[in-house]
Amino acid sequence: MAEPATATQAAAPAVPQLKDELDIVIPTIRNLDFLEMWRPFFQPYHLIIVQDGDPSKTIKVPDGFDYELYNRNDINRIVGPKASCISFKDSACRCFGYMVSKKKYIFTIDDDCFVAKDPSGKAINALEQHIKNLLSPSTPFFFNTLYDPFRDGADFVRGYPFSLREGVPTAVSHGLWLNIPDYDAPTQLVKPLERNTRFVDAVLTIPKGTLFPMCGMNLAFDRELIGPAMYFGLMGDGQPIGRYDDMWAGWCTKVICDHLALGVKTGLPYIYHSKASNPFVNLRKEYKGIFWQEEIIPFFQQIVLPKDCTTVQKCYIELAKQVKEKLSKVDPYFDKLAEAMVTWIEAWDELNPTGSSVTNGKAK
Amino acid sequence: MAEPATATQAAAPAVPQLKDELDIVIPTIRNLDFLEMWRPFFQPYHLIIVQDGDPSKTIKVPDGFDYELYNRNDINRIVGPKASCISFKDSACRCFGYMVSKKKYIFTIDDDCFVAKDPSGKAINALEQHIKNLLSPSTPFFFNTLYDPFRDGADFVRGYPFSLREGVPTAVSHGLWLNIPDYDAPTQLVKPLERNTRFVDAVLTIPKGTLFPMCGMNLAFDRELIGPAMYFGLMGDGQPIGRYDDMWAGWCTKVICDHLALGVKTGLPYIYHSKASNPFVNLRKEYKGIFWQEEIIPFFQQIVLPKDCTTVQKCYIELAKQVKEKLSKVDPYFDKLAEAMVTWIEAWDELNPTGSSVTNGKAK
Repeated sequence: MAEPATATQAAAPAVPQLKDELDIVIPTIRNLDFLEMWRPFFQPYHLIIVQDGDPSKTIKVPDGFDYELYNRNDINRIVGPKASCISFKDSACRCFGYMVSKKKYIFTIDDDCFVAKDPSGKAINALEQHIKNLLSPSTPFFFNTLYDPFRDGADFVRGYPFSLREGVPTAVSHGLWLNIPDYDAPTQLVKPLERNTRFVDAVLTIPKGTLFPMCGMNLAFDRELIGPAMYFGLMGDGQPIGRYDDMWAGWCTKVICDHLALGVKTGLPYIYHSKASNPFVNLRKEYKGIFWQEEIIPFFQQIVLPKDCTTVQKCYIELAKQVKEKLSKVDPYFDKLAEAMVTWIEAWDELNPTGSSVTNGKAK
Repeated sequence: MAEPATATQAAAPAVPQLKDELDIVIPTIRNLDFLEMWRPFFQPYHLIIVQDGDPSKTIKVPDGFDYELYNRNDINRIVGPKASCISFKDSACRCFGYMVSKKKYIFTIDDDCFVAKDPSGKAINALEQHIKNLLSPSTPFFFNTLYDPFRDGADFVRGYPFSLREGVPTAVSHGLWLNIPDYDAPTQLVKPLERNTRFVDAVLTIPKGTLFPMCGMNLAFDRELIGPAMYFGLMGDGQPIGRYDDMWAGWCTKVICDHLALGVKTGLPYIYHSKASNPFVNLRKEYKGIFWQEEIIPFFQQIVLPKDCTTVQKCYIELAKQVKEKLSKVDPYFDKLAEAMVTWIEAWDELNPTGSSVTNGKAK
């Protein structure tokens, strides 16, 4: 568990599930050698690579992968003036990949994430587990003490209301990390040597009404159910904050999932996170977020979306309105962010015209 | 994992924690041979044995245990007319043990629960893990994706608000079961061979506002913080329902913990549950509950306790009032239950006079 799997340990599944219905989105600034290790699991799928930073740099992708690659020039060309909503010099740029995908499902992973091993030493096919999570229902309205009742060997326990056992569609599957845990800069500074070695063999639904810190390192979602809420905000170049892109998306997504009766699961699969980012750099990026989250989280906890918000887009526009009204007093940044949220939805709808718009639980 | 540990595998901890501050409460109708296996872990502690059924029967307790034993005659003598609130011929009678205890902590376990093994084959000291759970804070206001942040090797992840990292006092530690899972009669009938073999190495706080099915088989709690809410209801002899005693206590307890900002943890420790109860008998006991829970759970989900309910007792009396008002229409049984809830609190206060009354988070 303390070491990543080697490529030879990784055996491909007999039939790659959702092969033509899922894109793997990877934001990067470097050559994608890490894909070698994932080859048995990822090669059947299409990759969307979002190149951050200098667009003149060439990113090498190992042979044999089916991919499209977008650099900043491509993003500006495709989205036009609305490209202002896509962050630069921050992994938040990955959400451009969600927008240009034409598939029903997205899996996104960072390029410093390797294949982890389960306690028996077997290489973990993270994508396969995400697909399992997404294709089985969630149970947000009541807690099941044996965790995901839809896993093999598990079920609903005594006292679980039968009317709730059908569950709701799962919109998000949030995977975890062995080795380097996803800590903030202060915790990294205080515990430089801490490694996550605990393999928790569980998947669970995050209950309705409960927010969580969503990490973008190892994440999958149903684009048709929740895609337009997966905006990773304004981070990095020219912005007062970084490393809150996935957090922002997580708060917005969870509130909208709760409103639309969609599920968010967390737990398995693990990836092996190889290197901690520099805590000093992180502190500079994060420190405003550390203050702001003390006001942002209560804001999201009190949000009520009106009943006529029946699509993700409508929910998101309403969220943007409330962000402008209630968070602008925290910092003028939130004014800009609220506007970018609207721009994001406009750009999403341009790239995903009517045929692919989304209503509650059913893609039209 | 599929077999219980043997007695020889069970090594006693060097110093039994909370030795003089914790009682082990065991409801039973038979000789307590199962204690032999628990000897290394339980022998330092005081046991309260609540004998159910025929009081003339003699229950044998293995030598060397420090215990007090109460049969129905004792209960009637000690509680007087208010003994009507203590169930007969149902494990719900165990809550009498909570009432007569003079200790700060309670661990309660069923007599068909043996010592489980962790994946390395080591015997699990369930009591030791419960104590760890109870003595470390809970985090009900925001979900931590690496589970209990207070365990060794874990912490709060990036994005977890710093203002919430102190946590709140833990009132309840709900442990799980390997081998025979805690299923209802219909699930037992449908899956007679299902065994729980999945060891999930996690403890987590059940978020505020989320109800769960609390099982009384392997349960610990802080009696000073939440004791008066641990009433196991009217079940068994003369009642239209059984096997909902712990569920009832769980719903009441969770709502009150949420109101008083106390934590409820679930997960580790596992015990090895040896025998499934008869599903046909269970169905007869449970079937009304299967209907009723569809109305009871929404009732508990909507409960708001007034601000002046600052003690567990006040909360519980208020709950009794709302049960009478809103659940009596489901069945006249709830009228009786609401009255028994009040009687329970009166009896509790008689046996636990002022010196041991409880206020939010602080025992006076």
